[in-house]
Amino acid sequence: MKDSPEYLAKKSFFDKVLTIYGRNAVMEALEDDAVTIHKLHFSKSNKDATVLEQMKEIAQRRGIEVAYHDKQALSRISKNAKQDQGVALDIVLEHFGDEESFLDAHNTYRIIALDGITNPQNLGMIIRSCAAGNVDAILLPTKGAAQISPLVIKASVGTLFKMPIIKTTDLEKTLESFQSKGASLYTLSSHASNSYKEQSYSNKTIFVLGNESEGVSKRVEDLCDKSIAIPMQRGVESLNVAVTASLLAFL
Amino acid sequence: MKDSPEYLAKKSFFDKVLTIYGRNAVMEALEDDAVTIHKLHFSKSNKDATVLEQMKEIAQRRGIEVAYHDKQALSRISKNAKQDQGVALDIVLEHFGDEESFLDAHNTYRIIALDGITNPQNLGMIIRSCAAGNVDAILLPTKGAAQISPLVIKASVGTLFKMPIIKTTDLEKTLESFQSKGASLYTLSSHASNSYKEQSYSNKTIFVLGNESEGVSKRVEDLCDKSIAIPMQRGVESLNVAVTASLLAFL
Repeated sequence: MKDSPEYLAKKSFFDKVLTIYGRNAVMEALEDDAVTIHKLHFSKSNKDATVLEQMKEIAQRRGIEVAYHDKQALSRISKNAKQDQGVALDIVLEHFGDEESFLDAHNTYRIIALDGITNPQNLGMIIRSCAAGNVDAILLPTKGAAQISPLVIKASVGTLFKMPIIKTTDLEKTLESFQSKGASLYTLSSHASNSYKEQSYSNKTIFVLGNESEGVSKRVEDLCDKSIAIPMQRGVESLNVAVTASLLAFL
Repeated sequence: MKDSPEYLAKKSFFDKVLTIYGRNAVMEALEDDAVTIHKLHFSKSNKDATVLEQMKEIAQRRGIEVAYHDKQALSRISKNAKQDQGVALDIVLEHFGDEESFLDAHNTYRIIALDGITNPQNLGMIIRSCAAGNVDAILLPTKGAAQISPLVIKASVGTLFKMPIIKTTDLEKTLESFQSKGASLYTLSSHASNSYKEQSYSNKTIFVLGNESEGVSKRVEDLCDKSIAIPMQRGVESLNVAVTASLLAFL
């Protein structure tokens, strides 16, 4: 049985929805007219507070739907009972999508794939640099790594809302799939003899960047077609991963 | 009267000494054999604590001089009574110096000058990228900006001890002095029409980078010879200052 067009449209909409939480983060997003908002959620157990009244006022002014839940239901929405402070907000990321929708729109591309980046500051900086630079999308695993959070939005200085992001639940499988459709995968390695500046990159290029401390996972490394190095002075062994992403984004 | 050679040698040594404070920071530095240490300072008012005993043991093993002071004297050494926790440590930065000693050793150079960088994380990342990249020194004001601190050392991932840093108490005056000796000063500006990649830089080049939120101060901007831009996609207006420094360091 094929999925109905209504189901697919709904699925594709919810693929673009991201829920953030916490009073400061939600307030910041509500106040930013550049952020498209789907729905504002409150816990019924919230005590009266000025900031909650302000949120309701903004919601009314912006025509945003408001929903009230019991405490447990709200924590299922926020997925973080400890830090939601009784408030969650569904925001719409127009440039969020999956591999398929990305490939429908791009014959040639340069992608930065992130393998286990855990620091939200770094993820935000990577998004900012990729948005400003020559990168068509970021490939972001939805498990085992920093997720889009208020901290990430802040560190991205709003560029998250401009940057195409391809979500994957299985990075290795998605990279293999791209590879089977002609993409070349490059990893960074301090031991590689090829400088990143002296390559002629394929018109379907994916740079795979690894975790801040452990680098790219073995299974993903084995998939890659080529290792490249950023030559460094003074015996320095590595750069901050957001700096590495930036050097590749501005190649 | 000329300064005696003894006085000059002593002055030149103390130019390279930096005092850090706080129990965690001091312990980390003591444990790192790559850090050259001049002297360990305690307040006599400290209560017994395991970490203080450990510090004394390391000092004995490494042959580091230990001094005891009353509380006020220690706070004059740490210059931060509120946060020193009764402990300070003089570390030696071999690559610290002033304009004169730098120019004695360099006929041509590329320098990154920092005008009011306040975030220690950013300063640490800038040091790391400059140490790894093609930058001969960082020009760092000793007032009105982030100073070398434990946070900065940490964010530099130890590269602080490898990177030449020129200290200045008056950035504008030092930049003018470099300029009078043939240096060209470049500032970054999103409005500039010259891309940073398409310049032929002078062999005495100084890039001046401004504060995270306000950019380069007006007086310093007026001094500069040329404005250059990093062209950006998607209407992004700026990059993290450490990313900007990194792109220039790896030009």
